[in-house]
Amino acid sequence: MADPATAPSEGPSAEEPRRSDRPEEETVGLAPALVDAVRKALAEGQVETVERQVEPLHPADTADLLEALGRDERKLLLRITGEALEAEVLTYLEPELRNAVVADLGPKISAQLLKQLESDDALEFFEDLDEDPRTQILSRVPRTIQRLLTEGMTFPEDSAGRLMQREVVVVPSIWTVGETIDWMRTHKKQIVSDFYDLYVVDPRYKPIGKLPLSRVLRSKRPTKIAELMSEDFYPLKVTLDQEEVAYLFRQYSLLSAPVVDDAGRLVGVITLDDIVHVIDQEAEEDILKLGGVSESDLYSDVLRTTRRRFSWLAVNLMTAITASLVIALFEATIEQVVALAVLMPIVASMGGNAGTQTLTVAVRAIAMKDLAGRGVARFITKELLVGLFNGLLFAVVMGVIAWLWFDQPLLGAVIAIAMVINLVVAGLFGALIPFLLDKLGADPAIGSSVFLTTVTDVVGFFAFLGLAGLVLL
Amino acid sequence: MADPATAPSEGPSAEEPRRSDRPEEETVGLAPALVDAVRKALAEGQVETVERQVEPLHPADTADLLEALGRDERKLLLRITGEALEAEVLTYLEPELRNAVVADLGPKISAQLLKQLESDDALEFFEDLDEDPRTQILSRVPRTIQRLLTEGMTFPEDSAGRLMQREVVVVPSIWTVGETIDWMRTHKKQIVSDFYDLYVVDPRYKPIGKLPLSRVLRSKRPTKIAELMSEDFYPLKVTLDQEEVAYLFRQYSLLSAPVVDDAGRLVGVITLDDIVHVIDQEAEEDILKLGGVSESDLYSDVLRTTRRRFSWLAVNLMTAITASLVIALFEATIEQVVALAVLMPIVASMGGNAGTQTLTVAVRAIAMKDLAGRGVARFITKELLVGLFNGLLFAVVMGVIAWLWFDQPLLGAVIAIAMVINLVVAGLFGALIPFLLDKLGADPAIGSSVFLTTVTDVVGFFAFLGLAGLVLL
Repeated sequence: MADPATAPSEGPSAEEPRRSDRPEEETVGLAPALVDAVRKALAEGQVETVERQVEPLHPADTADLLEALGRDERKLLLRITGEALEAEVLTYLEPELRNAVVADLGPKISAQLLKQLESDDALEFFEDLDEDPRTQILSRVPRTIQRLLTEGMTFPEDSAGRLMQREVVVVPSIWTVGETIDWMRTHKKQIVSDFYDLYVVDPRYKPIGKLPLSRVLRSKRPTKIAELMSEDFYPLKVTLDQEEVAYLFRQYSLLSAPVVDDAGRLVGVITLDDIVHVIDQEAEEDILKLGGVSESDLYSDVLRTTRRRFSWLAVNLMTAITASLVIALFEATIEQVVALAVLMPIVASMGGNAGTQTLTVAVRAIAMKDLAGRGVARFITKELLVGLFNGLLFAVVMGVIAWLWFDQPLLGAVIAIAMVINLVVAGLFGALIPFLLDKLGADPAIGSSVFLTTVTDVVGFFAFLGLAGLVLL
Repeated sequence: MADPATAPSEGPSAEEPRRSDRPEEETVGLAPALVDAVRKALAEGQVETVERQVEPLHPADTADLLEALGRDERKLLLRITGEALEAEVLTYLEPELRNAVVADLGPKISAQLLKQLESDDALEFFEDLDEDPRTQILSRVPRTIQRLLTEGMTFPEDSAGRLMQREVVVVPSIWTVGETIDWMRTHKKQIVSDFYDLYVVDPRYKPIGKLPLSRVLRSKRPTKIAELMSEDFYPLKVTLDQEEVAYLFRQYSLLSAPVVDDAGRLVGVITLDDIVHVIDQEAEEDILKLGGVSESDLYSDVLRTTRRRFSWLAVNLMTAITASLVIALFEATIEQVVALAVLMPIVASMGGNAGTQTLTVAVRAIAMKDLAGRGVARFITKELLVGLFNGLLFAVVMGVIAWLWFDQPLLGAVIAIAMVINLVVAGLFGALIPFLLDKLGADPAIGSSVFLTTVTDVVGFFAFLGLAGLVLL
C-alpha cells in the first residue's frame, strides 16, 4: 500500500478559489420541487423562467425531467429549448421516450443534436429509433457520421460493436513519451475530449499494448512507449455479446478494453461507463423476468402494458388449470373430508416458496457465472438436502397445527408427509430447472418459475390429496 | 462527433510486435478443464505442476479456483503457493471464503499480502474478517496501514468512506502543466500506480477542480492548471451511503468522484470500478430478497442455508394458514359444491401472479429512483387499470372454461367476477405496498411479496367462495 502521494499546496493560492461545493442534498438527482416549478412555469407560459430552470441541469436530470412531464408539457418544453437542448439528454432518455422526443423535435434538430454526440452515444441513440425517423435523420447528417452509423448497425444487437466508441487514441510502439506528448499537443483538436488509456498498435493495426495516461505523465521524454505499455489487456471481438463483455470487465476489473474485428485489427474501445449501463440492464432483465414482466413497462401506456403482461398471465393460467385438474381427480375424497380443501393450498404454497428460493439463487449464479467449475451436481445435492431439512421442520409444525385444528391425528400425519415430499421436490426442481433451461439455450430467468410452480402445485396437491385418500377413507 | 483521431503508424515498427492476442474463448473466465487439472495435480501431490497451472492466472480467476476447490484441496493449494499468492486474490474472494482462506494462510502471510493492497482493497478485505484474525493481522502491519485501516473502520458500513481509495494525486491550482508533469516525474515512486484524474485543492485542502489526465497531456507546458480543470464534479460526503454513491455515478456517468470529510476537505477518491461491485451487490440483493433469500447462500453449507431460509418460509406458512382460515369460513359451501375446491386456487394464483408483475416493476423503480418526480399516484392508477383490463380478459376466458367444464353457467359467472375483483386488487396492492414500505423506511424488496400474497389469497378465496355461496346455494 503506497503512502498517499500529494503535491504540497504551497501557501495560499494567488487567486480566489472557485469552489464547486454544492450542498450534497441538491446533487442527488432531480428535485421533485423543481419538476413542480417547471410544470407551473410551463402552464403559465413563462418561457424565460423555464429556460433559467432547465439551463443549469445535468443532461441526465433534464432527461428525468422530460420523463416526469406529461406529453403536452414535454412538447412545450422542447419547443422552448429547441436546438439549445444538450445533445447528451437524448442518450439518457428511456428508449420508449426517445422516439417521442425525436418526433417532438423534428428530424432537423434531432440530426443536429446527433452530430454532437460521441460515436458510441450516437449509435446507442440511433439504434433505438423507429424506422421512419431513422431514415430522416440519417439523410441529414454528414457522410462520415452516416458511414459510422450504418456500419454500427451491421454489428449484432447487444454486441461489443454496438457499445464501442470509434474514437480511439492510438500510438505506434516505436514512439517515445516525448513524441507522444508533442503529437497530442499538436493534434488536440482531433482527439476525443477525455480519455484514459492509449492503445499501441502494430503496423497492421493490431493492438499490442495498452498504456494508462498516468504512466506517460510519470515518465521521462526519451522513454520508449514499448517499454511502458502493458501487454495485459483483453481484446474483445466486435461480435461478442454484451453479457460476455460485462463479465470480462467485472471479472478482471477493467476500465477499458480494445475491440477488434475478425482480422484482429483495432476498431474501437469500450470503457467501463458503457458497461455500467449493460450491468444495470442485465440485472433489471433478470429481476423483471423472474417477476413475470418481459421488459420494463414503467413508461408504457396502459394498453401496451396490459398486452405485454397478458401472455405471462395466460401461461400461468394454464399452470393453475393443470393444478385444478389434479384436484379434480380427488373430488370424491374432498367431498367426504372438506378439511382437505381447507388445508391443501398450504402444501402447494410452501413448495412454491421454497422452490423459488432455490430457483432465485440458481438463476443469479448462472447470470454471474458463480458456479464456474464448482459442479452443478454439488449445488443440486445441497438444495435437495436443504429441502429435506426444512421439509422435516415444517412437517412437524404443520402436522401439529392440522391435528389440533381438525382434531384428527391422521390428517396431521398426511399433511406432514406431503410437506416433506413437496419441499424435497421443490429443492430438486428449483435447482434443476434453471440449469436445464440454460443448457437448452433458453433464458433461465424467464421460464423457470412457471415450470417450478407447475411441479410444486401438481406434486403438492397430488401428494396431499392422494395420501389422504389412502389413509383417511 | 469527432473523427477518430489516430497517430499514423509510420511504416513497419523496428521491433517484432509482442502480441497479446489470446484466443477469445480462453479469456472468458476460469476454464472448468483447468479446475479439474489442478484438482488432479493436487491429488497426486505434483507441486510443480500446480505452481505452473496457478502462476499465469489472473487474481480473479485464482479466486474462482479457490472457490471451486474442496476444503482440503484449498488448504493444500494455499500451502503450495504460500506468500507467492497474489494479494489481489484476497479481494476477489466471496466474504464467506475470505475468513477460511485467511485461517489457512495464517496471520503472518495474510498481513504480508494485505500490505501489498491499495487502501480501498485493503479495507474491503479487512472489514469482512472475523474479530480474531482482524486483531492478529492488524498487529502485524506497519503503523501507517494500521492507522488507515482503523480510521476506515470508523466510517459507517457501506458508506463512501469504506469504498474510497486514500491515495489521491492532488495539485494546487496555481501550478502549470509543466510543473505538474515535472513533479510527477520526480515523485513517481510515491504516486499510486495507475490513475485517471488529478484533483485540484485549495490551501485548506478543499477540492476545487478535477482534471482528466488527457487534458494535461494535450496542453502546452505554460498552461495553468486553473484554466484546464473542470469545476463540474460531485464531492461525496464520507458518510454517504453506497447506494446513493452508486446512484450519482450512474446518473451522471462519473468515472471518479472526490470524497470529502465534514469540513469539506478532500480525504479520498472513489472510482467507477469500485462502484460496479456495489451495483452488482445492490441488484443481487433485490433479486434475492424478492425470491425470499436474505443474502446469497451459494457458498454456505446445508445447515446454515436451511436456517436462513426457514424464517422466510415460516412467514409464508402464516400467509398460507391465513388463506386456509378464509377457506374454512366456507366449508359448508364447498361441501355442497365440490367444484369450488377444484377452481378456487385459480383465482388466488392469478391474483398473486398479476400482483407480482406490478410489484416487481415498482420495487425496481424505487431502487433505480425511476419514478423521481413522476408521481406515484400516476403509477398506481395505471396499474389499477392494467389489473382491470387483464381481469376482464381472463374473466371471459376462465368464465367460459368453468362453465363448459362443470356445465354450470352460474359457476362461470362467479369465477369471472372473482377474477376481475382479484386482479384489480392485485394491481392496486402490488403498486401500493412497495411505496408504503419505502415510506415507512422498510426495504420494499423484502416484505412486499408476503403482504401481497396474503392480500391476493385472502381476497381471491373470499371473493370466489363468498360469491359462490350467495349465487349458487
